[in-house]
Amino acid sequence: MDLAGDIARDVLERIRRSKVAVPVGISSKHVHLSAQHWDLLFGRDVKPTSLRQLRQPGYFACHETVDIEGPKGRINGVRLIAPHRPATQVELSRSDAFALGLKPPVAGSGKLGGAAPIKIYGPKGSVEAKEGVIIPMRHLHLSPDEGKALGLKTGDVVRMRAGLGGPRELVFEQVLVRVSPEFALEFHVDSDEANAAWLKNGDFVHIT
Amino acid sequence: MDLAGDIARDVLERIRRSKVAVPVGISSKHVHLSAQHWDLLFGRDVKPTSLRQLRQPGYFACHETVDIEGPKGRINGVRLIAPHRPATQVELSRSDAFALGLKPPVAGSGKLGGAAPIKIYGPKGSVEAKEGVIIPMRHLHLSPDEGKALGLKTGDVVRMRAGLGGPRELVFEQVLVRVSPEFALEFHVDSDEANAAWLKNGDFVHIT
Repeated sequence: MDLAGDIARDVLERIRRSKVAVPVGISSKHVHLSAQHWDLLFGRDVKPTSLRQLRQPGYFACHETVDIEGPKGRINGVRLIAPHRPATQVELSRSDAFALGLKPPVAGSGKLGGAAPIKIYGPKGSVEAKEGVIIPMRHLHLSPDEGKALGLKTGDVVRMRAGLGGPRELVFEQVLVRVSPEFALEFHVDSDEANAAWLKNGDFVHIT
Repeated sequence: MDLAGDIARDVLERIRRSKVAVPVGISSKHVHLSAQHWDLLFGRDVKPTSLRQLRQPGYFACHETVDIEGPKGRINGVRLIAPHRPATQVELSRSDAFALGLKPPVAGSGKLGGAAPIKIYGPKGSVEAKEGVIIPMRHLHLSPDEGKALGLKTGDVVRMRAGLGGPRELVFEQVLVRVSPEFALEFHVDSDEANAAWLKNGDFVHIT
């Protein structure tokens, strides 16, 4: 065992990682619908239409929006993201959730156990998603090539320095890494996190 | 010069500081009025009345509220803080500012050069604060005794670890220290910063 060599390699890898400029993607509030809920809200005979492609391959923001309602309030015109998901998932910031009177958990996408209930209204009807609302857990997306270059794999945990040079620099601890052929290098935060660090879409952050 | 002794003392001081539990005070949106603006909005013959004392001695949240308006929206029922200030100061989160169509700077209290303009409505009239809106810069308040105990003085810069054990731990960099007989130990953040770190009023953070 060459302890000094191991440490030197680790330090070099950390320095190398810290030089990579990682673009920020801010999750504004949005809704993924199941095919069944889409049919009830918009009708079986129509399909979602693309407003713009998202950075993650195959995903698009739709022209279509829905209204959402909790015990204390309602937000109209919330953007849909396609394609459909196996289960309807509403992603809000904590600020939005407070305004609706909801206390959703921070959770990874698709982890809907314990998610908060919400009513959703579309042009053709309404549905209730009983476990529908989460606050998205921040995470770092990488393609397999990017993961290999940075020595990172799914499940690794890193720290991200954000807002460097701005008035509100901070370090996000315990950022989960996800590697997939469907992903491109991007650090995903919600709007509260972006505002706290004074970030806008496409700003750069660094692994630290 | 005893370098090893200096380093040892510095490390011990840092360890000691890191053990102090600092309560969080979250600045929700609020308004400080000048006496002149109070008179125009509420009338010369009435005085603000206390809804509750704040942690900072002598300050109180008022029963009275105002409505505020920017180019893109309006927020009704924004709480007043008394006593009056030499100049009217509206403190918003970046989320709130975006909703109103404003781009105020992050600034320390009273630093209104470059602050954003806003209209304010009260029961007796309205005023425009031409340089009125800031996003409050996070800071650590200490009494002189607390400052002495922690080896900190006004103008020092520390890092605060927040949200430890929660789902969104982070480290706020470049936190300004302010020491005054009017202050009590408290770390002040705005609602975006509180939501990013999953904090509520009275939670504890640590100098790190």
